[in-house]
Amino acid sequence: MADAERALELPGETLPTENGNEDSGPTEDAHIFEQFRVERGCLGYVVADPETRLAALVDPEVEMAEPMLDFVFEHGLKPAYVVDTHTHADHFSGSRELKAKTVAKIVMHEVAPASCVDIRVEDGDRLWLGGLPLKFLHTPGHAKDLVSVLLPGKILSADALLIGACGRTDLPNGNATRQYHTLYYVYRSLPEELSVYPGHDYQGRSHSTLGEEKRGNPKMLFDSEEAFVRYMERENPGKLSPVYQLADALKANMA
Amino acid sequence: MADAERALELPGETLPTENGNEDSGPTEDAHIFEQFRVERGCLGYVVADPETRLAALVDPEVEMAEPMLDFVFEHGLKPAYVVDTHTHADHFSGSRELKAKTVAKIVMHEVAPASCVDIRVEDGDRLWLGGLPLKFLHTPGHAKDLVSVLLPGKILSADALLIGACGRTDLPNGNATRQYHTLYYVYRSLPEELSVYPGHDYQGRSHSTLGEEKRGNPKMLFDSEEAFVRYMERENPGKLSPVYQLADALKANMA
Repeated sequence: MADAERALELPGETLPTENGNEDSGPTEDAHIFEQFRVERGCLGYVVADPETRLAALVDPEVEMAEPMLDFVFEHGLKPAYVVDTHTHADHFSGSRELKAKTVAKIVMHEVAPASCVDIRVEDGDRLWLGGLPLKFLHTPGHAKDLVSVLLPGKILSADALLIGACGRTDLPNGNATRQYHTLYYVYRSLPEELSVYPGHDYQGRSHSTLGEEKRGNPKMLFDSEEAFVRYMERENPGKLSPVYQLADALKANMA
Repeated sequence: MADAERALELPGETLPTENGNEDSGPTEDAHIFEQFRVERGCLGYVVADPETRLAALVDPEVEMAEPMLDFVFEHGLKPAYVVDTHTHADHFSGSRELKAKTVAKIVMHEVAPASCVDIRVEDGDRLWLGGLPLKFLHTPGHAKDLVSVLLPGKILSADALLIGACGRTDLPNGNATRQYHTLYYVYRSLPEELSVYPGHDYQGRSHSTLGEEKRGNPKMLFDSEEAFVRYMERENPGKLSPVYQLADALKANMA
């Protein structure tokens, strides 16, 4: 669609080739990776294994579905998984459309309410695209069913960690204490070199590194759980605008 | 019972008084705390708020039920919660007996299968004994439904972290990857000063500190998740003896 623009994030050696053949097998850091962006700052991703061409489509906002399919077919990829990192409250998921138009299975966390989910993952589970692992970390707080997706060298952090911020915890299924655990137990324990690809960015940025976030993200620099929870519950909501189409999006995405 | 011996772990200022009155209210570190031990190294705990006398009974192995009740009534405590940190596979829980003999509610993690559970907690939830918080951390790996209980200055670590070791992950509902997250994300993120009171100790020790475990516990010193998981899945089980009454204990505790 016209209002979906791609931010290409491919390292040179993993550029997809026209005929689908790669001379070398996948290495730890060699995978096909593309970021998709729509209005209101939603970010989605296509990840694929260059050898088997198996692909995962992560957080397809409904307007991303067609551009993601164009990318998949242009590059000879085989959609295996559609991952919704959580029950989105601020946009409509394109997962059902992608499931209907491909053979991909929908993947979500085990507590996700949606009935269309084919594969339910828990903390620590892995799915494989050929030799490329997608590891799921349960990182709730913004939503109870939120998973981050760990790839070699990268993490797709959804709303668990945004560039310089984190997802709000005052929406349905949010919980500030769990968000504290997510940031201060899980994300602080992961390596600084990881590239962080969030689920939203309202300033046009594509990614960050976890080291930068650990050092500079105000949400990762609170002195105590109490102070963090107080801020997220009492001060933060007042600074935020009402969510666009909240009830309609939740109703559709939970169905 | 004759084979249950108590290891008294009360700091001086929190010794329970006969009349149940305390001059000062509870402070962050002042709470009534008693460890119970039975044959085969099972450890259970009674925690209470000195002001309101409200008490939690944690991991009552069936032979601890009577000694715990003796302690509770001798010290004028009011049992509010019976906490099973997980579905035990190696001993019979005394929770049902304690629920029948007191007004206490049984507390377990939300995915625990037992039908007798009254209050289901999730990661980050708190219950209060008057002014004394019990904070639950979901720390699976030994069992899917395992919670550690964080108190002021202490953590009741169950099988998530033992002194110099950790619970095995090869039993039903065990998972080595989740155990890695528990030790390397959650426990590594907690303060070194915490006293660690485990759910088992086979050498008669009562507790440790988290700093000692971070520095000296071989299970916390693996270089990578892969090495830890390989060890827990392939090498560790061969070093362990069969679990005493596994099927019978699981059947009773899951009912």
